[in-house]
Formats: sequence, C-alpha cells, structure tokens
Amino acid sequence: MAEKNIFELSANDSNARAGILHTSHGSVPTPVFMPVATQGSVKALDSIDLKNSGAEMILGNAYHLYLRPGPNVIKELGGLHQFMSWSGPILTDSGGFQGFSLEHLRKITEDGITFKSHIDGSIHTFTPENAILHQQDIGADVIMQLDVCMPTGNSEEEILAALNMTTRWAVRCLETFSNSNQLLFGIIQGGVFNKLREKSAEALLPLDFPGYAIGGLSVGESKTELYKTTKFTTQLLPEYKPRYLMGVGSPEDLVEAVASGIDMFDCSLPTRIARNGALFTKTGRANLHSSQFKHLDQPVEVNCNCFTCSTFSAAYLHHLFRAKELSAYRLATIHNVSFILRLMRDIRESIVAGRFDKFRTDFHDHFVPPDPSVRHEQRQKWLRAQEKSRRS
Amino acid sequence: MAEKNIFELSANDSNARAGILHTSHGSVPTPVFMPVATQGSVKALDSIDLKNSGAEMILGNAYHLYLRPGPNVIKELGGLHQFMSWSGPILTDSGGFQGFSLEHLRKITEDGITFKSHIDGSIHTFTPENAILHQQDIGADVIMQLDVCMPTGNSEEEILAALNMTTRWAVRCLETFSNSNQLLFGIIQGGVFNKLREKSAEALLPLDFPGYAIGGLSVGESKTELYKTTKFTTQLLPEYKPRYLMGVGSPEDLVEAVASGIDMFDCSLPTRIARNGALFTKTGRANLHSSQFKHLDQPVEVNCNCFTCSTFSAAYLHHLFRAKELSAYRLATIHNVSFILRLMRDIRESIVAGRFDKFRTDFHDHFVPPDPSVRHEQRQKWLRAQEKSRRS
Repeated sequence: MAEKNIFELSANDSNARAGILHTSHGSVPTPVFMPVATQGSVKALDSIDLKNSGAEMILGNAYHLYLRPGPNVIKELGGLHQFMSWSGPILTDSGGFQGFSLEHLRKITEDGITFKSHIDGSIHTFTPENAILHQQDIGADVIMQLDVCMPTGNSEEEILAALNMTTRWAVRCLETFSNSNQLLFGIIQGGVFNKLREKSAEALLPLDFPGYAIGGLSVGESKTELYKTTKFTTQLLPEYKPRYLMGVGSPEDLVEAVASGIDMFDCSLPTRIARNGALFTKTGRANLHSSQFKHLDQPVEVNCNCFTCSTFSAAYLHHLFRAKELSAYRLATIHNVSFILRLMRDIRESIVAGRFDKFRTDFHDHFVPPDPSVRHEQRQKWLRAQEKSRRS
Repeated sequence: MAEKNIFELSANDSNARAGILHTSHGSVPTPVFMPVATQGSVKALDSIDLKNSGAEMILGNAYHLYLRPGPNVIKELGGLHQFMSWSGPILTDSGGFQGFSLEHLRKITEDGITFKSHIDGSIHTFTPENAILHQQDIGADVIMQLDVCMPTGNSEEEILAALNMTTRWAVRCLETFSNSNQLLFGIIQGGVFNKLREKSAEALLPLDFPGYAIGGLSVGESKTELYKTTKFTTQLLPEYKPRYLMGVGSPEDLVEAVASGIDMFDCSLPTRIARNGALFTKTGRANLHSSQFKHLDQPVEVNCNCFTCSTFSAAYLHHLFRAKELSAYRLATIHNVSFILRLMRDIRESIVAGRFDKFRTDFHDHFVPPDPSVRHEQRQKWLRAQEKSRRS
C-alpha cells in the first residue's frame, strides 16, 4: 500500500474535506467515523449489524486484543478481519492510550510503557517495536505508532517531554514496521499548547507517515480547547494525507472537527451512551428510561431508517430498558451507530455539494448537546464503572 | 376461532403426532417449541432474530407483562404482537406459576393468588377472572387458565387440594372468557400421582377447552417421574385437541415427550444456558468458556446453518464469552434456539415419514445430556441468581 496514493481528496468546502481512503480491505469515503470494537466486538453488535448500520471502517484496540485473546491467537485464526468476520477496513490503536491510564500505568521509560493487566494483574511492557509487531499480527489495515498520551492538567514541561518521547518512538516504530499491506500513522501530541503542537508536527512530518493522527485530545479538556487545538493542529498537517482525530466524538464535535479539516474519527461515546439508554435524535439526546416514552407508539426518531427505528416503537425500547432486557443495548446501539454514520454521510454530501457551512449551521440550530455538567457527570460515572470492572 | 377446528392431526407414529395448530396469527406445524419471551423479549434476541432462527410461535409471561408495562399499556399499543413486532402466534401463561413461587407468594385463597411484585414489593391479586381479562388485553393467540401449581415434595393431599381449586378456577376462567380471536386452554394438575392426574382430567375434559396443558411438571421431579407422568397424563387427553407440556424442555425431554404424544412445549432452558455459554450440539452441550475452543477455527457445530455458526468461529464465541461481550449472549442464544427449532422440524419430519422411533434412538445414541448433578447445580445457581435479581 505504501507505494500508491492511499488518500484522494474528492472535494473541499473551506477547510472541510471529502476524500477516499484506500486500504487493503477496500476504500472508504471520508470523513469517516469508526465505531469502536475494543475487544474485537462493537459492544452488543455483531459484524453484520455493523454493516447494516452503515459502518465502513471500524477500530480495534491493541491493548485489549494483546491481553485477550493475544496477537498470536488472532494471527493463527487468520487475522482480526477473519476472527470477527468483518471484511472492511480496520484500524488498531497501539495500546499507548490504555497503557497510560492511571489505573494501569506502572512506568514509562525510554524503552516503553510498563503496565498492569486489568484482567489478571500481570505486568507487561509495550515498546515501540513490539507495539508494531503485535499490530502486524492482529493485521488491521491502519495501525498506530506507540505514543505517550498525557491528560489535561499536566504541565507544559511534562507534555513537552511526552511529545519528544513520542517522536523518538515514532522513529523506532518506523524502523520495525515491515508490512506493506498496512498503513502506519504517526501521532501528533502537545496537549492544548499551540507551540508544542507545532513542535510535534515539525518533528513528525519529515518522517513521512502516510497519515497523521492528533492524539492527546478528548482527555478532559473543554470543548473550546478541543475545537481550538484541533483547528490549529489540523492546519499544520499535510493537505494530501488523511488526518485522524483520536477519541472524538459526539455529533457536535464531529461536525466541528470536520469543519477544521479532519478526515477520520473514532469514539466509544455513541455506543457507550446507547447502553445507558441515551439515543441520538436530530434535536439532541433522548433518554429512553424516561416515562415520556412509555406510551409512545412511534420510533425514537421519526424517519430514521435504522433497523431499530424501522422495527420497534419508542415504547417498546423504553420497556426493554426498564426491564433490563439485553436486546435494549443492541437495539439502542444500532440506532446510535446508524445515526452517527448517517451524519457522516450527510456531512460528506454537503461538502461535495459545496454547502457544508449551511449544513453545519442547520445542524447546530437543531441539535442541542447535553449541558457540560451533565457530560461531566456521565463521564465520572463511566470512569467509576471502568474502575469497578477493572477491580472485579 | 372457537367455532372452527383449531387443530389438525396430519400424521402419527405410535403415540408421536404431527399436526397443525390454527390461530388468529397463522398456523403452526406441531410438535412446536415456543421460545420464552418472558417480558416481551426472548432474552438477547429481537423478533427478527427469532424469525430467522426458525421460530413459529413464542410464549409471553402474563405475570411479568402485568407488572411491566401493564396489560392496559400493551392493549393501548395494539397488543403484544404489535408491541414486540412479532406477527406470528403467541401464547401467554396466566401468571399462576410465577405468582406461586415461594419468593412471591403471599396467599392462595379460593378467590385467587395474592403475591408481591418482584419489582417494587407492591401487593397484587390474580383471580381466575382478572387473569383472563389481563390476557385478553395482552392479546396472545392462546391464553391459559389460572391454575394452582405445586412443586415436587408437597403431599398428595396438598396436590389434590390444588387440582380441585384449579378445576373450580377453570370454570370461572371460562365464564369470564369472551374473546373469539383467542383460544383458552385448561391445565391438568396432579403432580406425579396417576390417580390425581386422572381426577384432574376427568374434571376438566367435560369443560371442553380447545386444548389442554399438563402443568405441575418440570418443578423439581426426576426425569423418570417427568417421563412417566407425561406418558400417563397424555393418554388421558382427547386425541383431536392440542396437548401442551408446560416448562419442558431440554432436547432429550422434548424427544421423549413427543414420543408420549405432546404437541406443544415452552422452556427457558435453551436461552438461559446459552447465556451461560452452554451451546447444544448433536453430541450434547458444549461449554464455550472452555479453553478447548480458544483456537477452534470452525463453527461450534459444523454443518449448523444458524446465523451464528454460519458467520462466526467457536474461537470467536469463546473470546466473546471470556471478554464478557454482550454479543456473546445473543449469538449463543440464536444458536440454541435454532438448534431446538431444527430438532422440532426434524422430529416432525420423522413422524410424517413414519420413522420417529429410529430418529428417537439415533438421537439418544448421539446426544449425551449433562449429568443430573450438573443439572441440579446449574438449577441451584440459576435460582440463586433469580433471588438475587429479585432482591436488587
């Protein structure tokens, strides 16, 4: 793949871009949102559900897949595509982000990240080299360099040190990387500091990765900081390479990041909040636990053509959530994934038609994001649940 | 429906029968197994999954649906078929069995069963009359009389008293029943005592229900007692009416009960054990948690044409169970439901072809049921989990 042009720009509208990403498992129209299949499964869905919901490309998590079932097992079973019966493109992150989280972290040295398994407490080290080897075994179409990711709140010095180490690790990843069927992306770090983002881009662009990600966002910063830093960093990146904003996002964040020129996204939010009963609609999030849906004999979103809305009423979904029926989680997830993927298709269409600005204005006129305090509270709840499940 | 012949006998082979049950929502070949949609959902599946897995008729639970969302809500939303988007026949049990369980039971009087809601502890009474009215609102095709069900271990006198009350309640149910689109079945009680079964049949047959169920089995008795009592009771029942053995069963029990002349079955076992990772195969149950599946790059059951086996390897399912991914429960349930429904089709075919005896022998030659002690342990585990969820 490295030999040919892996990314075509089809159209742009101000900074927003419509393109095509070519991979070993097919070509994907961009901007693209990748549903998150952390452990080789988008939670509650199977690969046919994903296809039927409009997914073009998905994301797997090298940290989780390394611990279970193991890259060697996945390789032996024909690679991640065959393992999970997904024939489209897949991207894996390197595992740096998970290795980093405070609960797991043991030590970051020049050598790599030493962390504790959330499954059995065993100690492991990801080096730039073995992170590439693991991802080569897993066999995704796009793989990520090992990076050092810092949360909001670290000092400028700490973030500078992290980005410098990320640069040195980028070189080591490239030296190890040897699979011509995969694309290896570099990761720009630098927190919310423009001059650090500049420094990171200056160091990584000469390494000529086929695509670049913006890391170190969606880690606790404000929306204003997220949008500002995305915009600033994106304009540092090469025009003819795909740009991937890691860990974003919500519908409103996707629209804003596309406006800055981002091409690729992943985020567990749409699937995570679906399992909590929060379903996207044109006007914002609907809470299916609410008794307002008890008698509602129409789809959660009228005119939505997803399987869930085509088949079941809001009243039935409300009942399934109240009764804690397992199918609630799948049906809600199908809707949210379909919603986000339709949003991406609509965004792309509007870019191609040269009316993205109007689309963006219309979208924000109708879609009301949850209050930041609600978002914060949900995030805390999620983090507590994560910790609880790690401990159990 | 009451006016026309609701049951046709197509063929029989010794006592085993192949027939057709006609309902307001279509005709169903018998013997038929009804997957259990306790709360209006077969756990982990949606109605399209059920159809794709070969389901012809399903069962809902009037006790659960009465408590949530309530018969009035279901009626207002167009009835249970429309509520859960299932266009085929449905049977509801009356709620007597759940009302009875020790955890819920408050009091049985001549008037009815007073019980405590497992949801909020509130007190409710099912009378023979309101059990019919609730089931008329819910709108299943076949509904059941309110009965008094006793577990194994009660004295002959207690079981006699229960069957006598069941008879008196049968009369009251018939007096209330007024929906010509539904079929109301009577329930033969009498535990494992032949003379009580005779007494129950003698009392209920003159009431001329369009179909009869055998209740009070699958409540803790041994397999020998189950088979013996089923055989004895079945031969008391009218030849030209459908016979329904409530709460059975496992593959081996289904084959044996068909051999005695049973036409209809329901049981939560296939779906419940699927969620525990136990999948049916021709040779018995496979435990998907077992590491023997970690590397198995073929379906759980080779040549099984269910969605799960057609799409995913045993290794992937093993991984999903190990990783506690929600999709594990759905994929395993799809397989077990498909397995049981294919078994029923194969049984019917063999009856029609006059080779059921050979089928039965071949089946038992290959299929090894779990050890009774394993079954007992699983049941205890399930009961504990039920109690825990009731308390939470």
